[in-house]
Amino acid sequence: MISLLSILADIDAGRTSPERSLSEAQRRIAAEDGSLHAFASVAPERAFAPRRPGPLLGIAVGIKDIIDTADLPTEMGCPSIWGGWQPRADAPVVGLVKAAGGVVAGKTVTTALAQLDPSPTLNPHDPARTPGGSSSGSAAAVAAGLVPLALGTQTGGSVIRPASFCGVAAVKPSFRLIPTVGVKTQAWTLDTVGLFAATVADCAFALAAISGRDLAVDREPGAPAIGIVRPSFGGAASPQARSAIATAAAAAERAGCRVVDIDLPAVMADAFEAAAVIGAYEMRVSYDWEFVNRKDDLPPVLRAALERADGLRPYDYDQARGRARRARTAVRSIFEEAGVDVFVTYASDGVAPGRETTGDPRFNRLWTLLGVPCVNVPGIRTRSGLPLGLQVVAPFARDQRALTAAALLEEIWRDLEPLPDPA
Amino acid sequence: MISLLSILADIDAGRTSPERSLSEAQRRIAAEDGSLHAFASVAPERAFAPRRPGPLLGIAVGIKDIIDTADLPTEMGCPSIWGGWQPRADAPVVGLVKAAGGVVAGKTVTTALAQLDPSPTLNPHDPARTPGGSSSGSAAAVAAGLVPLALGTQTGGSVIRPASFCGVAAVKPSFRLIPTVGVKTQAWTLDTVGLFAATVADCAFALAAISGRDLAVDREPGAPAIGIVRPSFGGAASPQARSAIATAAAAAERAGCRVVDIDLPAVMADAFEAAAVIGAYEMRVSYDWEFVNRKDDLPPVLRAALERADGLRPYDYDQARGRARRARTAVRSIFEEAGVDVFVTYASDGVAPGRETTGDPRFNRLWTLLGVPCVNVPGIRTRSGLPLGLQVVAPFARDQRALTAAALLEEIWRDLEPLPDPA
Repeated sequence: MISLLSILADIDAGRTSPERSLSEAQRRIAAEDGSLHAFASVAPERAFAPRRPGPLLGIAVGIKDIIDTADLPTEMGCPSIWGGWQPRADAPVVGLVKAAGGVVAGKTVTTALAQLDPSPTLNPHDPARTPGGSSSGSAAAVAAGLVPLALGTQTGGSVIRPASFCGVAAVKPSFRLIPTVGVKTQAWTLDTVGLFAATVADCAFALAAISGRDLAVDREPGAPAIGIVRPSFGGAASPQARSAIATAAAAAERAGCRVVDIDLPAVMADAFEAAAVIGAYEMRVSYDWEFVNRKDDLPPVLRAALERADGLRPYDYDQARGRARRARTAVRSIFEEAGVDVFVTYASDGVAPGRETTGDPRFNRLWTLLGVPCVNVPGIRTRSGLPLGLQVVAPFARDQRALTAAALLEEIWRDLEPLPDPA
Repeated sequence: MISLLSILADIDAGRTSPERSLSEAQRRIAAEDGSLHAFASVAPERAFAPRRPGPLLGIAVGIKDIIDTADLPTEMGCPSIWGGWQPRADAPVVGLVKAAGGVVAGKTVTTALAQLDPSPTLNPHDPARTPGGSSSGSAAAVAAGLVPLALGTQTGGSVIRPASFCGVAAVKPSFRLIPTVGVKTQAWTLDTVGLFAATVADCAFALAAISGRDLAVDREPGAPAIGIVRPSFGGAASPQARSAIATAAAAAERAGCRVVDIDLPAVMADAFEAAAVIGAYEMRVSYDWEFVNRKDDLPPVLRAALERADGLRPYDYDQARGRARRARTAVRSIFEEAGVDVFVTYASDGVAPGRETTGDPRFNRLWTLLGVPCVNVPGIRTRSGLPLGLQVVAPFARDQRALTAAALLEEIWRDLEPLPDPA
C-alpha cells in the first residue's frame, strides 16, 4: 500500500513530483494488474499526468465501474448487458476528484451490477480468497499499491467488507455526503459512495478534498468513549471475529478509552430486517429494464435475487420504510444515552472466505440503512498475515468524529497480537 | 383534452378499442404537433399498438425528454450538449408505464436541462403565452388532446405550474413515490416525477397504476376541511391569483367545506429561502460536467444560474438542509393544529405570461422541498378563456387524500364565474 498523505509529503519535500507519482501508478497497474484483475479498464498512458492544482495533485484514483466516466467505458461489471457502454458525461463525483487535482487511473472492477456474484479480482493477500464485493477492484487496487485512492459504493456492505478483507482503510460517509448522481442506482435510499486508501488519515484527507467539508482528523484527540456493538440478530459472528473485537476492546481500554457494551434495542433488529426488504424492492425497481428485457444475460446470484424481489409489494416496502425511519431517529439516542462517541463493531465476519462468494454483508447492512458514517480500521492480522478490519460508526453527519476515533484506534490496534487463523 | 378514464370506459363498453385509441393519438400528434411543438421525438407509427394488458391498455403516454428511454433519444432539451443521446435502458418509471399496459407515444419537450430557459412549445390556449416549464411539452400535449397522459418532473414548480397555465390536472406525488432512477438528476432531494391528465380522477387512476398503490379517489367523500394558504413570503400574488383563491374558497364554503385561513410560521419562510439554496447547490453539483466542460453550449438563463450557484459553499448547503428538515417536521403539525385535511394555495401567479419566460415557480418551491403531494385543480378560467389552476396540498404520503379533495374541488370549481382577464 502507498499512503496518499505520504506521497503528498514526498511531493512537498521534493522527494518526488506529481508527474512521477502518477507515472509510478501507471507503471504498477501495467505490471501487476494482468494477474490481479482490479481494473476493468485503464486510462491511456498520456492520461497519467497532472492536469490542475488541488489537494489531490499527483494522486491516481481508481473509479468503480458503475460510476459514469466520459473518457472510459462504464460496464457495470456486467458486459453481457452493459458491454461497451460509454457515458457522455462524468458523474459529479468524478468531476469533484478532478477539481481536487486527482487523475482518473481507470475503472475498477465491480461485481455484476454491484451485487453478490463473484468478480474476477483476486485478494492481494491470498489469491484463493475473495477480495470481497461489490467494490472488489477498488479495495484490491489500493491493497496491492496500484493506486493510493479508489472510489467504491455501498448499498449493503460493498465498501466496508472488501476493505476489511483486503486490509485497507475505507470510509462510507454519511448518506449523500458524496453525490451519487451518475452512479448506477441499485437502491436510492441506500447507495453511498465511499473511499478506499491506505490509512484512515488518508481517507479523511481525500473525503475532505472531494466533499469540500472540513474533516481533517484531530491530531491530538482525547481518547473516545466507545460502545462495543455485537449484534444479536442476523446470525452469530465467527469465533475469529469475536476474538478480534474482544482483543481490540481490551486494547482500547488499556489505551485510556472508556469502553462499554451496547445492546441494540429491538427497533434495530426490525431495521435490519427492513434493510433487506428495502434493498431488494428498490433493486427490483432500479434494475427493471435489465430484469424485464435481459433476464437471460444476468449472472445467477443476481438473477435469483431479482426473482425473489419480484414478489415484494409496494405495501411491504412502505412498511419497511417506516421501520427504517424509526431506527434512524432511535440510533441518535443510543449514542447519547450510552454516553459514547462512536460504536465499534464487526466490519466483516472474520477474514475473507474463498472466491466462490464475496462474503457476507450482514454486519454492514444496518449501518448503511441508518445512513451513518462507517470507517474500516485496518491493521489487525491473523498469524498467517490475513487482514481483518473493525468498523467504527458515528452518528449521522459526524463523519469527522468517526474518522478521528478510527485514526486513533488504528494506532492502538496496529500492535495487537496476531489472531488465530481460521480453522 | 381527452380523459383517460373516459377512453377506458369507451373501451370497456366496446365504443372504441385499445388499437383505435392509440392510433388516434398517433394521428393527432402527426396532424397537430408540427405547430404545437409538444414533442421532441415521436415513436414510429408501428409503436402505437397495444403490447400487454394492464390498467393503462390503450393509453398513449408522453414522456418528458429528461427521462431515459431505450427506444427513443433523450436530449434533455439541450441538443447542443445532449444531441442524439440514446440511453441503453428505459428508466424504471417507463418500465412501470409499460408494465401497466401503457404505450410510449414519444418524448415531450422539456426546457433545457429542466431549467428556466423557454422551450419552443406553445400554450394551446394562446400561442403568445408560455405553456410553463420545465415540463412544457407534457402539459401542452395533454391540454391539446394529443395524449391522455404524460409524465413530467418537478424540482421547483415544473409540474404544477405548467398544468395551471395549460388548464390540465396534474399531480406531483409525495417525494419518491415514483422512482426517479434513470431521470436526469437536477437536485436529488427535490426532483419528483409527476403526471398530467385531463382530470384529477385521471391522474389518481394513472398514479395508482404506475406506483402500485391504492389511490382510487373516494367517490363519495365527505366535504374536506380546507386551510387556505396565501404565503406572505416570496412576493405578493397578483390581483388575479388573489381573486381566484378568494372566489374558490367562498365556493368551497358554500359547498359545505370548512374553510380556514392558515398563516404559515416563520420556519416555512426559512424553508422557502432554503429551497433556493438547496436547489441551486445540488444543480451545480449535478450539472458539473456540463458546466465545467460545455459552458458555452448552455442556454443563457441556465448558464447564469449555474454561475451564481458556483459561489455556494457546502456550509451554506448543509445549513439549508437543516432548515428543510425542520420545516418537514413542522408542516405535519400545521395540518393537525388547524384541523384541516388539505391546504389550498396558488398553483401559479395567475394565468400564463408571455413566451419570453416560463413563469414564476415561487408558489411551488416550498411544497417541492417539503416533499408533500400537490395536485393542480383545473377548470377555473378568465373571461377570455385562459386557464388558471389552484393547488391542493396534503401531508407527506397522503396522496390519496390530496387527490380525493382535489377531485371534489374540481367539481365545485367547474362552475365558478370567469375571472377578469389580466390587465
